[in-house]
Amino acid sequence: MSEKYAYLGPRGTFTEAALLEMPQSIGAELIPAGSVHQALEAVRLGSVTGALVPIENSVEGSVPTTLDELSHGQALEIVAEVAIPVSFGLLVRPGTQMSDIKRVATHPHAHAQCLEWLHANLPEVHVLPAMSTAAAAAELDDDAPYQAAICSTAAAAHYNLEILADNIGDNEAAWTRFILVRTPGHAIPSTGSDKTTVSLFMHEDHPGALMEILTEFAVRGINLTRIESRPTKKQLGDYFFSVDFEGHIDEERVGEAMKGLHRICADVKFLGSYPRHDGKFSPVKSAVKDSAFVEADEWLSGIRKRR
Amino acid sequence: MSEKYAYLGPRGTFTEAALLEMPQSIGAELIPAGSVHQALEAVRLGSVTGALVPIENSVEGSVPTTLDELSHGQALEIVAEVAIPVSFGLLVRPGTQMSDIKRVATHPHAHAQCLEWLHANLPEVHVLPAMSTAAAAAELDDDAPYQAAICSTAAAAHYNLEILADNIGDNEAAWTRFILVRTPGHAIPSTGSDKTTVSLFMHEDHPGALMEILTEFAVRGINLTRIESRPTKKQLGDYFFSVDFEGHIDEERVGEAMKGLHRICADVKFLGSYPRHDGKFSPVKSAVKDSAFVEADEWLSGIRKRR
Amino acid sequence: MSEKYAYLGPRGTFTEAALLEMPQSIGAELIPAGSVHQALEAVRLGSVTGALVPIENSVEGSVPTTLDELSHGQALEIVAEVAIPVSFGLLVRPGTQMSDIKRVATHPHAHAQCLEWLHANLPEVHVLPAMSTAAAAAELDDDAPYQAAICSTAAAAHYNLEILADNIGDNEAAWTRFILVRTPGHAIPSTGSDKTTVSLFMHEDHPGALMEILTEFAVRGINLTRIESRPTKKQLGDYFFSVDFEGHIDEERVGEAMKGLHRICADVKFLGSYPRHDGKFSPVKSAVKDSAFVEADEWLSGIRKRR
Amino acid sequence: MSEKYAYLGPRGTFTEAALLEMPQSIGAELIPAGSVHQALEAVRLGSVTGALVPIENSVEGSVPTTLDELSHGQALEIVAEVAIPVSFGLLVRPGTQMSDIKRVATHPHAHAQCLEWLHANLPEVHVLPAMSTAAAAAELDDDAPYQAAICSTAAAAHYNLEILADNIGDNEAAWTRFILVRTPGHAIPSTGSDKTTVSLFMHEDHPGALMEILTEFAVRGINLTRIESRPTKKQLGDYFFSVDFEGHIDEERVGEAMKGLHRICADVKFLGSYPRHDGKFSPVKSAVKDSAFVEADEWLSGIRKRR
Repeated sequence: MSEKYAYLGPRGTFTEAALLEMPQSIGAELIPAGSVHQALEAVRLGSVTGALVPIENSVEGSVPTTLDELSHGQALEIVAEVAIPVSFGLLVRPGTQMSDIKRVATHPHAHAQCLEWLHANLPEVHVLPAMSTAAAAAELDDDAPYQAAICSTAAAAHYNLEILADNIGDNEAAWTRFILVRTPGHAIPSTGSDKTTVSLFMHEDHPGALMEILTEFAVRGINLTRIESRPTKKQLGDYFFSVDFEGHIDEERVGEAMKGLHRICADVKFLGSYPRHDGKFSPVKSAVKDSAFVEADEWLSGIRKRR
Repeated sequence: MSEKYAYLGPRGTFTEAALLEMPQSIGAELIPAGSVHQALEAVRLGSVTGALVPIENSVEGSVPTTLDELSHGQALEIVAEVAIPVSFGLLVRPGTQMSDIKRVATHPHAHAQCLEWLHANLPEVHVLPAMSTAAAAAELDDDAPYQAAICSTAAAAHYNLEILADNIGDNEAAWTRFILVRTPGHAIPSTGSDKTTVSLFMHEDHPGALMEILTEFAVRGINLTRIESRPTKKQLGDYFFSVDFEGHIDEERVGEAMKGLHRICADVKFLGSYPRHDGKFSPVKSAVKDSAFVEADEWLSGIRKRR
Repeated sequence: MSEKYAYLGPRGTFTEAALLEMPQSIGAELIPAGSVHQALEAVRLGSVTGALVPIENSVEGSVPTTLDELSHGQALEIVAEVAIPVSFGLLVRPGTQMSDIKRVATHPHAHAQCLEWLHANLPEVHVLPAMSTAAAAAELDDDAPYQAAICSTAAAAHYNLEILADNIGDNEAAWTRFILVRTPGHAIPSTGSDKTTVSLFMHEDHPGALMEILTEFAVRGINLTRIESRPTKKQLGDYFFSVDFEGHIDEERVGEAMKGLHRICADVKFLGSYPRHDGKFSPVKSAVKDSAFVEADEWLSGIRKRR
Repeated sequence: MSEKYAYLGPRGTFTEAALLEMPQSIGAELIPAGSVHQALEAVRLGSVTGALVPIENSVEGSVPTTLDELSHGQALEIVAEVAIPVSFGLLVRPGTQMSDIKRVATHPHAHAQCLEWLHANLPEVHVLPAMSTAAAAAELDDDAPYQAAICSTAAAAHYNLEILADNIGDNEAAWTRFILVRTPGHAIPSTGSDKTTVSLFMHEDHPGALMEILTEFAVRGINLTRIESRPTKKQLGDYFFSVDFEGHIDEERVGEAMKGLHRICADVKFLGSYPRHDGKFSPVKSAVKDSAFVEADEWLSGIRKRR
């Protein structure tokens, strides 16, 4: 029986496009989910092998829903990541002309990324919010209260639409990064070019907490690649930090840093160690290589034993 | 002639409710703006005295649009902040019953905060996205494709709606914080309970940058109250930090820290020093009080002069 | 057969007085050594159980010879420390009057501590250097080229001398601290009020090395009680650090810090964990208690196993 | 009238040899002083232009007396430094043979540096302490209770002695560094290769004090070249730090660091900024160059003025 992967749908989303670029999708059944929450719950319930959801894009920043859904609830693990360029098109039903367009539907984030083009080309248009860019395309039928959708051009084939304009995003270098999430137990060993993602919950009213966290990483020679404070939803000013860093949970320096964070934080959620999508590789200093940790262990044991 | 203040509209938004709590609104003309961008542009163009926009809420975190609009473009300054509890109601046209409701419209953020109530009370309902909670109320007329709006109960009076249910948010302690923005030249002096907001743009590929930034604050005894990494919109992994900290630009320790940041960052945007909405006051250590800086200046001058 | 302890002699030194205050001296044979080097070599050769030598005094600072002798050569361990007040007397052969004294002998360190008294009471006196204060007393016979010795008043009984003046030190609060040294294998377990002494050898030309060292301690909540840079005798500007800190090698936070130092230093010499002479006790923060380390180990093992 | 310089005497010391290498000695009257204290007091009293005293040697470390004399009492400033190789010889009265030598006199520090040679060549010899190596030579007359002196070979000419053996030190690379001290007001401007020396007195019972000090330097990109804890002579465990660092008091980064230290320390003694003896030059990072400080000042002024 084939494997099943959920993704943030509906069909034609950038998430689907990203999933199609991953080796895991080959021969697998790909199932659109109505929300990040639903995609992750499908993994938790075991109805799918894994789920691909967006985590960060180059224009809007992190995707709060994904960070929050991962940090709360039953533990899941990120096992892979992928990033794809985000290119928007203006999609219409066959035959529609620019001059016919009075209303356009899209997701607010996509709207924010196409403001300049809209201002120059459809200055009078009214923009309707949609739950996703693909949803705007999916619902563009005769009864729709709008005449065009801003979304991935890949959605055109799914919904029998035409691409009236391509590359209408204000920022040609826009990218979105996605993560593949599974239940614990399916991660792969260190490849030498890995990233780890954690959520760090602070004790209350601790002004130096962030400095302490960074020191735990720095003292083990670990580079951070992303950090965000996020509210814990309890009260204004009560935060947790979502952090990506270089290295793999099976490496000694990462293990010791994780233990240090566990000791100083109210809670640490481990969200996974997985190969970097870009294959980048920051050399590990000799003082924090696994071999240095092993040697230090032996040295300390020797001292303690001779006592 | 009376002063004019823009706010993120339409009428009936939480932003309007927050503005009405500020002394600046007394006797002033309050003008709803269609977006944060439009509200801030009105300030830049001089058509209004100032603008109130949301900056952070306890559930969704910071408001990316506001952070980005402030960090780019002609300089503006935050001159005040206010925070109000966020309480959602289900608003309908007079006579509508719960059983009549098939579709509900609201802003996606509000939707995210009322999931439990909706699941328990309207499990079958279909939720439509709106550009704001107040917009969902404003457009709830006979032709609307939905029968109810989730928004501030204050919107009921504006749009002749009825409150069918109140306090339907999942988190009773939810708050949103707003900032009042003006052109430079209108800030008030230090009150002893102030906050300062800056945007710090990093030089590329600098793994220890955040540690260096925090050290600039720590060495002058300055506490951070919020920090967020935000993409610069150029490429994935290229960040700036949005930071709130305790203290006022006119204080010596803040001035020296700002200069230190200016030296190590690619760019520092000063977004304002303003009184804290909660009047909280963290005692300043004697080593970083203004008097200590003045004394150190005199001491160093003495040493340099005697040479 | 009784135990034997060497001490920095000759008889009548402050070191002997300190040794007599230690429980280890009860019933043991106490053997004066001609130098710190000889005392420690006697331990290395097994001809004595242990040796007591001075490590630090409140006026002159650390005793370089002791630090160096411990850091180089076959490993020894500090198993106890003791501190005694240092009080100097002017000792003479019976019958000698103040007016008879033209020349006084003492160790240069003792000379430095009695300058004011000498200036006020023997302004014309010529001071001769001796290898130790006790040696000045021991050699004060008819043939000696001096008429008085500055040394511990305890030396009077040993050498049949009279105390012509007592408490002649300029600083009444002067103390000297001594360490009891044995071969490895004789230390006692953690008492909850312990100190550890190490020598840390740096890699060359590493300007941030001291900061890194301090961070290794700070991140495990360890307080330093003494730090000194000492030349390695190789070239000017080539240092090692002699460090005392709170805690015991058997404690988790100390073990992890030691391993961290081992990874970043060219060499780490462990010189012993031993009870503090003053019984002082700095509370250990809960995040760095042994229980916190054990819990973090189990937590990490759980995460790694479930993968 | 010629200038006068005091040096740590008597004639024939390494200090005199070092002074003769300095341009300041040309045409000046050189006056031996009986102690570091006397040399510095002569400067304070104005009876000499300046004084040269030893500060550090590669075998024994810093010279405590010099550090202490500079840190206490009327302010003096270091205006130059010089370092020379230290090479010991065995000096005797003409005609003395090795077999005649029963007793040798020298300073204890010199003794410590010639142990191996003595062991190999004069294994039976008894070593007498002298107040200085040159004093041992100066007092080597017919009545002396010893037959040889270990000291600089330069002393032979002064005291009509013969060099029986040269280069008898165990460490051929031994160096001593000396400082030229004057009253304030005679220092030279920054040369681009300067060092600054300070004494930093701590507030009591402050475990993180050293870390704070190092951070004040690090945040302004300043490298330390020497650090020592020294007792304040008040009670055991009460320290000050003697620190050398790269840079000149007239440079902005040094000025700001000095002010930061002044704010956090109980006291800061500035002992001088002077050209490095070795002319070494660590490149200053662009973020802490004077120009960066000036630019940051202007930037902050602009922000404060527009308010």
